[in-house]
Amino acid sequence: MDASSEQPARRRRGLLIVLSSPSGAGKSTIARMLLEADGEVTMSVSATTRPRRPGEVEGVDYYFVDDAEFDRMIASGEFVEWAHVFGHRYGTPKAPVKAALRNGQDILFDIDWQGARQLEPDFGEHLVTVFLLPPSMAELEARLRTRGTDSSEVIEDRMRRAADEIDHWAEYEYVLVNRDMDACLARVQAIVMAERSKRVRQTDLVEFVRELIGPEH
Amino acid sequence: MDASSEQPARRRRGLLIVLSSPSGAGKSTIARMLLEADGEVTMSVSATTRPRRPGEVEGVDYYFVDDAEFDRMIASGEFVEWAHVFGHRYGTPKAPVKAALRNGQDILFDIDWQGARQLEPDFGEHLVTVFLLPPSMAELEARLRTRGTDSSEVIEDRMRRAADEIDHWAEYEYVLVNRDMDACLARVQAIVMAERSKRVRQTDLVEFVRELIGPEH
Repeated sequence: MDASSEQPARRRRGLLIVLSSPSGAGKSTIARMLLEADGEVTMSVSATTRPRRPGEVEGVDYYFVDDAEFDRMIASGEFVEWAHVFGHRYGTPKAPVKAALRNGQDILFDIDWQGARQLEPDFGEHLVTVFLLPPSMAELEARLRTRGTDSSEVIEDRMRRAADEIDHWAEYEYVLVNRDMDACLARVQAIVMAERSKRVRQTDLVEFVRELIGPEH
Repeated sequence: MDASSEQPARRRRGLLIVLSSPSGAGKSTIARMLLEADGEVTMSVSATTRPRRPGEVEGVDYYFVDDAEFDRMIASGEFVEWAHVFGHRYGTPKAPVKAALRNGQDILFDIDWQGARQLEPDFGEHLVTVFLLPPSMAELEARLRTRGTDSSEVIEDRMRRAADEIDHWAEYEYVLVNRDMDACLARVQAIVMAERSKRVRQTDLVEFVRELIGPEH
């Protein structure tokens, strides 16, 4: 085995990857594919006041809390961000995010522009924001109808919300038009790889270069 | 054929990709591989006062000019950047670079940190700077010796220059340790793909979103 194939463990800052899109533009599918393909990315686990559904696991899908506990967590500043979504509250606890980023783990957030904005003050240097646009509103509506789970009324409401969500596209650093899931995933993976290659994210480079050319430089 | 597989031509700002490394760290190989793999990237053609070598083509490899012409081009501000390298002068004419970037073409520059600095004022918004580090100085020297073209004296000189060049690693946005050419190329390609996916580089997005959700938003 030659020296160039050895890959010593590298130290780096974790990424906080925000993936936003209107409902139906492929965000959940891309998120799932990215998590499957990349062992260094984990999904952020939210706390929610929504009742647990059959099959959902505490601490894996969500932390299930009641309204009083959610209020207490807000009051004591335990959330990175939180929001009302379809009548329930969802929030991201701060502690596990900080621990993961410190360990060079990347965390994926499936949140909207309001959530993304709340991450900026505490986690700006870790933040990578990606917005997925549908190729057309007709295509978006077709995808929502294909799911078959929602009534026409719910779909109309989602289409209205979609336009409001899209309206915030310009607050994101990366913007992708999702015409094809595989091509879109490849772009998201490229963004993740590029962000990891930024000088400022590689916390061991100063030491690496010092060992390379000596401290006198 | 369904609508989602149509890929309309997109308008974007071209990238000005600077790839720097000490001699022997793989810059030329990575540049060649990137050019072969990516039809939207072309190599910047420099003007030089160095004599033409057999096989070199005017306007493809270099623009060959004499000292008087090079002086005139400096005086009339026709260079993006220029530098002395090993006793000759090399410079990048501004006009073809501007034309290419306007057309959404990416241009690859194989220049050192001094050249990279000179690009900043005119082309800052197009600039993507990548520095390749060798895995070790022993590995770098081994690669220089494998070439077999240079004397020990020349190699010693190149090793000294290498340390000086590496000393400027922190001026680059992306830093890669080149342990393996294919892995390194994949990272450079990911950087190029990610940079093209940045909102600010896609000059047609405002119009695209206006057509998507209407002008009232």
